[in-house]
Amino acid sequence: MTEIEFPAVMPPDAAARREAVARHEKLTKPAGSLGRLEELGVWVAACQSSCPPKPFARPRVVVFAGDHGIARHGVSAYPSEVTGQMVANFLTGGAAVNVLAGVAGATVRVVDLAVDADTPERVSAHKVRRSSGSIDREDALTEEQVHAALVAGRAIADEEVDGGADLLIAGDMGIGNTTPASVLIAALTGEEPVAVVGRGTGIDDTAWMRKAAAIRDALRRARTVISDPVALLRTAGGADLAAMAGFLAQAAIRRTPVLLDGLVVGAAALVAEDLAPGAREWWVAGHRSAEPAHGFVLSHLGLTPVVEFGMRLGEGSGALVALPVLTMATKVLSEMATFEDAGVSTAEAELTSGPVEE
Amino acid sequence: MTEIEFPAVMPPDAAARREAVARHEKLTKPAGSLGRLEELGVWVAACQSSCPPKPFARPRVVVFAGDHGIARHGVSAYPSEVTGQMVANFLTGGAAVNVLAGVAGATVRVVDLAVDADTPERVSAHKVRRSSGSIDREDALTEEQVHAALVAGRAIADEEVDGGADLLIAGDMGIGNTTPASVLIAALTGEEPVAVVGRGTGIDDTAWMRKAAAIRDALRRARTVISDPVALLRTAGGADLAAMAGFLAQAAIRRTPVLLDGLVVGAAALVAEDLAPGAREWWVAGHRSAEPAHGFVLSHLGLTPVVEFGMRLGEGSGALVALPVLTMATKVLSEMATFEDAGVSTAEAELTSGPVEE
Repeated sequence: MTEIEFPAVMPPDAAARREAVARHEKLTKPAGSLGRLEELGVWVAACQSSCPPKPFARPRVVVFAGDHGIARHGVSAYPSEVTGQMVANFLTGGAAVNVLAGVAGATVRVVDLAVDADTPERVSAHKVRRSSGSIDREDALTEEQVHAALVAGRAIADEEVDGGADLLIAGDMGIGNTTPASVLIAALTGEEPVAVVGRGTGIDDTAWMRKAAAIRDALRRARTVISDPVALLRTAGGADLAAMAGFLAQAAIRRTPVLLDGLVVGAAALVAEDLAPGAREWWVAGHRSAEPAHGFVLSHLGLTPVVEFGMRLGEGSGALVALPVLTMATKVLSEMATFEDAGVSTAEAELTSGPVEE
Repeated sequence: MTEIEFPAVMPPDAAARREAVARHEKLTKPAGSLGRLEELGVWVAACQSSCPPKPFARPRVVVFAGDHGIARHGVSAYPSEVTGQMVANFLTGGAAVNVLAGVAGATVRVVDLAVDADTPERVSAHKVRRSSGSIDREDALTEEQVHAALVAGRAIADEEVDGGADLLIAGDMGIGNTTPASVLIAALTGEEPVAVVGRGTGIDDTAWMRKAAAIRDALRRARTVISDPVALLRTAGGADLAAMAGFLAQAAIRRTPVLLDGLVVGAAALVAEDLAPGAREWWVAGHRSAEPAHGFVLSHLGLTPVVEFGMRLGEGSGALVALPVLTMATKVLSEMATFEDAGVSTAEAELTSGPVEE
């Protein structure tokens, strides 16, 4: 099998970044007074190589759905059949991701990489297999499958960028998927298994212990391949995680900014940064998840989340709550008047009587 | 002069709150997985006495503009003429508040309570005076003026609620206004002057020392009247701050939810809670300002800000960044499918093979 080659990632445009920083000084507000909103606007300008940046024309969420063999071993509060049922819910617009995307002005696409059920043709074009191997004892994927999933993720990013998407969000859906995600995170950040085990969808103490044991066993297998991101996805990932990693790497290669979601997307992002170093400069973290391992992702990638709401749903929901903020940050640069436009004084205040100490 | 009477504030509806909590359990997501978004949706349902809550039909920002006599003493980085210039900028749509409101789906009204310049008739109907007394040495307002300003603020809230506003945001504009705001906060929270002095629009160390001295002197005068909120506004507030306090109290009396902005609105909110105890249950803090005194407001009122972006602009900008979040929280309850609607399984996962420990 041929190696998958990722071209070098170019950083966002430093000249546009400098222009945006300078423009912020001229807008009718005290310099720096919009805090994080100013930084985010500067980042969008740099990603677009344009100051002022253009408002997003087509923000797009892609939800990567897949089942996981490890779910058979009681690591989730829900049965695997929920994955396929939720895909149907996404398609009829009843899920959280649909509602949040509607408010934020984004559209949603669902792709089935490995759902353990039949799904409609319009979502299954990139399907690699059903479910995955149970990673505590066997590889998640074969060599062919991990390659197919990476290629699918890159193709999906290309399809979206070619279709006009100018801001991408990856979301996840898959019962059991926080188990492989936590393994990938522990493997790539050097954390101990017990530090990465979270409650996922809301498991009880007994399920938590099963999940901790599964992560421990899978991590023992994963640690033998941590220097090879593709082998790591094959050993301890899944087709959905591999596709997400390919998607995130390809988005950066295509110079398209990404708002990251929580734990599962964060695990894929860690792998994507290994596949395509520098990709992280094209990403902003939408939120900090309630899952403990997500904090390790954020520190490792050097990302500061936009919001901290204690969310732990996935689907792209945590990225979507940050999307209106990014839109605001962009429009501040493109729509606000300058001091000159508005005829507002910038001179330092004159003391028209003595200071109060006199 | 007759006392201003504030009718009792009724709390948000406990039955609608319980219904919303129960509804969250039935929506197609793990219980609690939307974190703060769930809490905010429950609060909106309680404020509206309706579950599911209705999406906001008319979110409305009212910017209270006024100048401050203390600005003559070099406590700001900008001259007082900027207040009137910014009112003009609001009216032509070039300010941050206009841009952020546009993204968030809110409309903006500007009211001149005490701008030290002539402003168009459509904003000056409630004008009380020009500027205010220099609070380090004299009262900000006369008895008549503070009453007129409180009455104006209540009338503005009534106008907005009667006009269909179902979510209110107060914003501020006024060179020098963080000085009286910081005095009110120190007076009502018992903090020391030096702990409340911030950089406002971005003052240098010399101006910071002048501001600290002004706050110290004004606080000495204010502490004699801290048990009387109207006298406190007269002594150390201003017509804009008094009107904001009346507006926030009246919004609660009219059972209308409010997203609070930062320091200046926070100072008015502290006074409003004294004028109309329980009003704070109708408020959510949009953000945590970069101004140090704002933290005292949040603790004193027991409010947790939605975002923390290091913003310090005022105008309602910090509330507006949180408005899309509130809209999302509301629509999650009104638009998401239930497990039953969507045919999604809620049963606990079955172990189809033994736990991994076997």
